Amino acid sequence: MSEQKSDLYNFFNAMSIAVIGASNSRGKVGFDVVNNLQACHYPGVIYPVNPKSKEIQGIKAYKSLKMIKKPIGLVIIAVPSKYVLPVIDDMNDLEIKNAIIITAGFKEIGSEGAILEKELGEKLLTYGIRAIGPNCLGLLDTKLPLNASFASKMPRKGNLAFISQSGALITGILDWAENEGIGFSSFISVGNKLNVDEVDLIEELGNDSKTSAILAYLESIDHGTEFIEVCQNVVKKKPILVIKSGKSAAGARAASSHTGSMTGTNTSYDTAFAKAGVIRADTVEELFDSATAFSTQPLPKGPNLCIITNAGGPGIIATDEAEFQELRLTTLEGSTINYLREKLPPAASTHNPVDILGTGNSKEYTLTLEATLKDENVDMALIILTPQGMTEPMKTAEGIVRLHGENPTKPVAAVYMGGTDLIESTIYLKDNGIPCFEFPERGVRSLSGLWKYVKLSQSIEKKATPRFFPDINKEAVADIFESVRNKGRVTLLGSEAVAVVRAYGINAPVTYTAFSVNEAKRLATKIGYPMVVKITSPDITHKTDIGGVKVGIKNENELVAAFKEMMGSARRHYPNTKVVGVDLQQMATPGYELIVGVSKDPQFGHMAIIGAGGIYTNIMKDVSFGLIPISTEEATEMLQNTKIYQILQGARGQEGADIPMIIETLERISALVSDFPTILDMDINPFFATPDGISAVDVKITIKMQEEER
Amino acid sequence: MSEQKSDLYNFFNAMSIAVIGASNSRGKVGFDVVNNLQACHYPGVIYPVNPKSKEIQGIKAYKSLKMIKKPIGLVIIAVPSKYVLPVIDDMNDLEIKNAIIITAGFKEIGSEGAILEKELGEKLLTYGIRAIGPNCLGLLDTKLPLNASFASKMPRKGNLAFISQSGALITGILDWAENEGIGFSSFISVGNKLNVDEVDLIEELGNDSKTSAILAYLESIDHGTEFIEVCQNVVKKKPILVIKSGKSAAGARAASSHTGSMTGTNTSYDTAFAKAGVIRADTVEELFDSATAFSTQPLPKGPNLCIITNAGGPGIIATDEAEFQELRLTTLEGSTINYLREKLPPAASTHNPVDILGTGNSKEYTLTLEATLKDENVDMALIILTPQGMTEPMKTAEGIVRLHGENPTKPVAAVYMGGTDLIESTIYLKDNGIPCFEFPERGVRSLSGLWKYVKLSQSIEKKATPRFFPDINKEAVADIFESVRNKGRVTLLGSEAVAVVRAYGINAPVTYTAFSVNEAKRLATKIGYPMVVKITSPDITHKTDIGGVKVGIKNENELVAAFKEMMGSARRHYPNTKVVGVDLQQMATPGYELIVGVSKDPQFGHMAIIGAGGIYTNIMKDVSFGLIPISTEEATEMLQNTKIYQILQGARGQEGADIPMIIETLERISALVSDFPTILDMDINPFFATPDGISAVDVKITIKMQEEER
Repeated sequence: MSEQKSDLYNFFNAMSIAVIGASNSRGKVGFDVVNNLQACHYPGVIYPVNPKSKEIQGIKAYKSLKMIKKPIGLVIIAVPSKYVLPVIDDMNDLEIKNAIIITAGFKEIGSEGAILEKELGEKLLTYGIRAIGPNCLGLLDTKLPLNASFASKMPRKGNLAFISQSGALITGILDWAENEGIGFSSFISVGNKLNVDEVDLIEELGNDSKTSAILAYLESIDHGTEFIEVCQNVVKKKPILVIKSGKSAAGARAASSHTGSMTGTNTSYDTAFAKAGVIRADTVEELFDSATAFSTQPLPKGPNLCIITNAGGPGIIATDEAEFQELRLTTLEGSTINYLREKLPPAASTHNPVDILGTGNSKEYTLTLEATLKDENVDMALIILTPQGMTEPMKTAEGIVRLHGENPTKPVAAVYMGGTDLIESTIYLKDNGIPCFEFPERGVRSLSGLWKYVKLSQSIEKKATPRFFPDINKEAVADIFESVRNKGRVTLLGSEAVAVVRAYGINAPVTYTAFSVNEAKRLATKIGYPMVVKITSPDITHKTDIGGVKVGIKNENELVAAFKEMMGSARRHYPNTKVVGVDLQQMATPGYELIVGVSKDPQFGHMAIIGAGGIYTNIMKDVSFGLIPISTEEATEMLQNTKIYQILQGARGQEGADIPMIIETLERISALVSDFPTILDMDINPFFATPDGISAVDVKITIKMQEEER
Repeated sequence: MSEQKSDLYNFFNAMSIAVIGASNSRGKVGFDVVNNLQACHYPGVIYPVNPKSKEIQGIKAYKSLKMIKKPIGLVIIAVPSKYVLPVIDDMNDLEIKNAIIITAGFKEIGSEGAILEKELGEKLLTYGIRAIGPNCLGLLDTKLPLNASFASKMPRKGNLAFISQSGALITGILDWAENEGIGFSSFISVGNKLNVDEVDLIEELGNDSKTSAILAYLESIDHGTEFIEVCQNVVKKKPILVIKSGKSAAGARAASSHTGSMTGTNTSYDTAFAKAGVIRADTVEELFDSATAFSTQPLPKGPNLCIITNAGGPGIIATDEAEFQELRLTTLEGSTINYLREKLPPAASTHNPVDILGTGNSKEYTLTLEATLKDENVDMALIILTPQGMTEPMKTAEGIVRLHGENPTKPVAAVYMGGTDLIESTIYLKDNGIPCFEFPERGVRSLSGLWKYVKLSQSIEKKATPRFFPDINKEAVADIFESVRNKGRVTLLGSEAVAVVRAYGINAPVTYTAFSVNEAKRLATKIGYPMVVKITSPDITHKTDIGGVKVGIKNENELVAAFKEMMGSARRHYPNTKVVGVDLQQMATPGYELIVGVSKDPQFGHMAIIGAGGIYTNIMKDVSFGLIPISTEEATEMLQNTKIYQILQGARGQEGADIPMIIETLERISALVSDFPTILDMDINPFFATPDGISAVDVKITIKMQEEER
């Protein structure tokens, strides 16, 4: 752990532990906890607390926490929920700062439990006590070692840490990992995440030199901004891999009802994870396929993979997966190919994937691996072995281990296909730090995770600071918002919204709002014909549906006619609306139609969107998201992630668009929303992009009724 | 097998087998084959053939096939490649009709081997001998039983058949399946597929009453049309699940170099599998997750899934996967919910996913499963169990098995999460025909495969016959093609292509080609102004790039100017082209811009495409494919599979398009290409769709130089 002891230090290092609710009765959680503490060879002192017993499982027991009268580093609470709060009071009196509250019966059982949990939460804050849980399995740590949980199985020692919002998943994974030979530094069940949550733990484990990768299963993230900030820091040191369940609409509903918390959309989680530098895994298997590589292999310098196989089929399967995982099937150096051609049988394929044929023995495997690991075009290698006539699984495994030792900078993984016959050699590989899998896809995924992390950590470094724009007029916007609020509105009129974006240096056609025919005539002279006339009202969201947009108004007669028609239509369709006017707007040079916007996510704050506009927005869904604040690099990436980017570059001989200006617009919007978090929603659609610039043709902005401090 | 013995019958039923190259030396394939035949308890007679030994592994050996002088059902060949052909000659003399050629050293080693393989193939055809291989592992069948391979492990008896183009994959799967407890009827390694290929075997296994699902690993499909036809028939009886490797570009290259055969694109395989009714699996694990359900469970009546769990997290994970797999998390009947509310603890979730809580015992599991299986809203159930305090894995397993027996029409699967502690109960479930998995996703996938198959087999039934159009003019098209060929061309001029589609009842603007200004003036009177003028030449593919399209030509002056300009531009850009004219075309009513086309796939024949046209075609890639012939249902499905379909239906208050006419166009194109397979490529882009009909504005057609017979 870190040099200066953090307030979570005792969860992993306490040398004295009190177990409240310790029991001699099998089947009780308080029995399991004491039993597990002893069974794991916890090196510290255990103080069972039970008002009725003098001895618990051979250890002297105490009637209460206060009766112990010795220093206590950590309290494990396993009494019914109604007895938890008094224990916390005792802890405060005794100045004990860490508790694992295993006890269930809080938020997860409904409103009564929620009230109790709220009270507990407040007490913990007031006392400055850090607590894991309630409603959790506990914590297992192989370093001390410490099994402060009711899970009987201690994981194998290793350098992966696992944080789980599901206790049941931990028991499942503990069993599974034992079979797979995967080792852990810590397992933490966070339960209801009342006081200590994944953000605290990721920060803590980020500083733990015994943890080389942090894994998490999460159903919700309650402190989105902090999550991103902490992850961005930790990811510079070690990878974070997360399974976020509740991806589908039905799954999100199930997660909400289970965890009792609001969950954001799957898109917002994806966007947040990208910003945080977190690798998202879809399944537990995928998570661990990557994790095993992180726990044993170096990071690759590039995406160039070489596959070595003694069977064509599995080589092709691996090649497919490599391409899907964005690894590159590298072209071997000419000298390597010549060497292999000389050393391998004539029918062997000396190009990547290298097929040493079914007759390949350990000598052929090792000479091939040796040559490819020396090849400058190769960043990592996957060795596939299927049991055939001349195959020597163990000798080949020994060769792989030796060559990996001699080439410590290039990651390798093995695929040994065929259960029983290869058990011994597979175990040998795993025990000697070579990830080994039963099927080719998993081997490829384990290596591709390494490269994904390299790219992510590089892009996190780049994304540091959003650009500063000296030409913005913050006061103008503050005035507009104030004036809008003073008029009792939260939705800006077209002219107001245009003024806001123009104040932040975003080009938009000059727009005025007129509430009478005469005002319209007068304002028209300031704009000039031809012009666009649009109905404007906080209540009318779909202008075109009621004939509320007319383009190419050529003279005053047409203007007057349009004004009357629109006001009539508005009164017919929206008889109760009070504020109705028309926006008069300069004609914009038509260009590629984009959408640019901002919306507010409950977990992660403001999220910007860019993509194909017009009728294509909702149907092609060619849009890309980014969390504000957005740097130049992020804005560029956002745009590049859309398909329409190809068109904007100038596809099929057509002229493209002013891409730097589109990127700058995203950054300026980021600056605007950062300065004014009171903006709830902002939508520029269409947003025209031409070869010479951009134009925010139709801007919609909604703000909060109350000003929000940043 | 079928009532009438097929010519593959002896592969699975021969009661006497000669082994050419039988050996007493361990390590030789000829040793393994004789050894495996004996070890598997093959009930027939074995005749080892070896010119040098009198006895092989305790059985009387013969100097040659001809020396045996007894009826022989099947010959297994394991001699070096140069000795194979004489054996085939002997077989012919002895009228033996079935051989498994294990011998390698043919096409896969290069040109020398390819020549030998060609000769072998011709002999087999001439003699009417059916042979599996060469370069294969052999065949394993649990029914006789028969291990006619050099794989030492016999699979567990079951009802899955596996066809593999990779022998190494079979050895891998044999081992893996043993651990997973999966049983097989047959395993067939097809090797180089010289004579017997997957099409023959799928047909054969389709008639095998002991096989309930056919699985295959394929790297190429050489007889695409036959593959589709046979699969469509077999799929009405049992599911076919295929892993087609070489999905990625790099993977396809690896597959080509490995199998020596041309492989089609991944899209063409996807399209063909959809038409054939084949379920495509991405990984071996996915394949078997589905397969185990097929081998034990009934088919569901609908997509309505109920999940029962004792832990929230895994329930959410399962819910996510169910939604991705297009199953429906059903709403339970009110009476079921009330019943569960009464019987389960108050904190339990009685809505789907039903969470019986960590305290759930076997009684609560079984009463919940019983109630949900009785619920009319439930078509299938997934039971998730994690080991917790009160969990009774074995008693719960017994309950699942009993309830499945009592409700034999609703498929169930189990997820028992947690290795060692649950081994016994997991084995009990599998042995009693309940698919059981370690992780929730796999359990869901196994059930979703069943529903996928139900939908596929239903749609195969529907897709029977393409529509007949009485109004087509086949002769007109034949005349056009003949005239084009007579002029030494294979690419049609615009006017010719338009005439072709019009002859098949597809609306297209009247189009004439003019080669001189005067001809243009004269033809213009037949069309009327305003009109479109386009350059036309077999050599000019991108007309717009050289200013070769002008819309809205209003009078003769403009026509003359356009003609001169275009011809000049054509001569400048294409100085060597001989045939250049201009197409004069009626102005079409603009509409939604689509692309409709046909291209020819090397494996599967003509493939039609429909989707968003214009600049969006290549970038949004919003297109859908179908293999010709195309029925009304298929054409409808194709259109529905595009995103632009939503726009064509009339999105956001806009008028839609004439969808029945778009569908009919696809069918008419199908009829055209079916009648004229000589068409190599056809491309209508743009193809306008309006509320009142369609218009094939720009039609390109390329044909073969030689007429092709259908």
